[in-house]
Amino acid sequence: MHQIPVETNLLADNAAVAQLNRQLFIEHGVYVLNLMSGPGAGKTTLLERTVEALGPKHRLAVIEGDVQTSADADRIAQHGVKAIQINTGSSCHLDARMIRDELGELDLHALDLLIIENVGNLVCPAEFDLGEHDKVMLLSVTEGHDKPQKYPVMFHAARLMLLNKVDLLPYVDFELEAAERAARALNLDLDILRVSAKTEEGLDEWYAWLKRRIARVKSPAQ
Amino acid sequence: MHQIPVETNLLADNAAVAQLNRQLFIEHGVYVLNLMSGPGAGKTTLLERTVEALGPKHRLAVIEGDVQTSADADRIAQHGVKAIQINTGSSCHLDARMIRDELGELDLHALDLLIIENVGNLVCPAEFDLGEHDKVMLLSVTEGHDKPQKYPVMFHAARLMLLNKVDLLPYVDFELEAAERAARALNLDLDILRVSAKTEEGLDEWYAWLKRRIARVKSPAQ
Repeated sequence: MHQIPVETNLLADNAAVAQLNRQLFIEHGVYVLNLMSGPGAGKTTLLERTVEALGPKHRLAVIEGDVQTSADADRIAQHGVKAIQINTGSSCHLDARMIRDELGELDLHALDLLIIENVGNLVCPAEFDLGEHDKVMLLSVTEGHDKPQKYPVMFHAARLMLLNKVDLLPYVDFELEAAERAARALNLDLDILRVSAKTEEGLDEWYAWLKRRIARVKSPAQ
Repeated sequence: MHQIPVETNLLADNAAVAQLNRQLFIEHGVYVLNLMSGPGAGKTTLLERTVEALGPKHRLAVIEGDVQTSADADRIAQHGVKAIQINTGSSCHLDARMIRDELGELDLHALDLLIIENVGNLVCPAEFDLGEHDKVMLLSVTEGHDKPQKYPVMFHAARLMLLNKVDLLPYVDFELEAAERAARALNLDLDILRVSAKTEEGLDEWYAWLKRRIARVKSPAQ
């Protein structure tokens, strides 16, 4: 009987802060994406490609979440893009308040796109709303096609799954169709793109997907 | 420092149970919908129409969540459909474990569609995953077009918004376009249908939407 109010209050607290974030993003017309994956799936490499490709025509910034170090923010900043590092310390995920605390560092009026790279973890990040428009997840084909069944919450929450490192498909036992079928069983509307951040295969489709979402924030469908 | 593990565990607990539910639904090919709204928006009337319309051709059951009474389950059962009542007592929402505890009462093999009517509340239900495929919310036009801004979490979480009681539009100050625009700002992919469960206006589109979702569970998009 004691736990229910505690849970409700803490959940409500994160949700309430997330909503304050979302309201700010909406007011400023900034499309915000929460990028999630297990460790080493290639999020930062993908982001480096993405800021290079979209940077010239879109005003963007990146928030990097890591347990420690500022290595990822440093990698992004090298491409001339504003990158803020959050170190989560003992927490295996970002939460809405951590994002909130950094928003003063960003000029939201001057942004079209904010990408938040979450801590590399296939479990906790999916459960904490940050106020983003979309959760996007990256699954490396080197991780195995059983991941949707084993980490279903994230696959259920995502709007788009990027199957990364497809250049390695000849060398691993990854059943693409099985992975995609399992992910779509969990998430009837999941978009899926097959990409390689390394070879750039499929990245044009990813950029096009992003541009469609940015455009939709500017003028929502009627 | 003490609260983070508590929150994480409790969130993870609901998410884990929700996922067990979802896995069962997927295995049995049952499309499951979590129907949410404020009190008196017309959920049960909509469900009565829906079970009458879909009952002959689809195998369906309903779980009714209410703080107390079995009035809603009784209304649904009068239409010859299996209806289970859950009384949540001090809780303003259903949670995954409450659903889990009732699944033994249902022959999932013999179902195409399970509709879970949540407790009438615009806040808490949206935060608790039950293992459903989709959250669907009902907003009565008598409630006012400011509701997306005031209760954004639910509008963000829903797959479909049913604007109900449109037969009363001539008698209330409800700005349809403003409500729809605000809801879609919160949720880029929100489907919206204008209906009146009373006059049956728009209900054919709702039934068609449901049938498409049921079909998609049977054969997910490739």
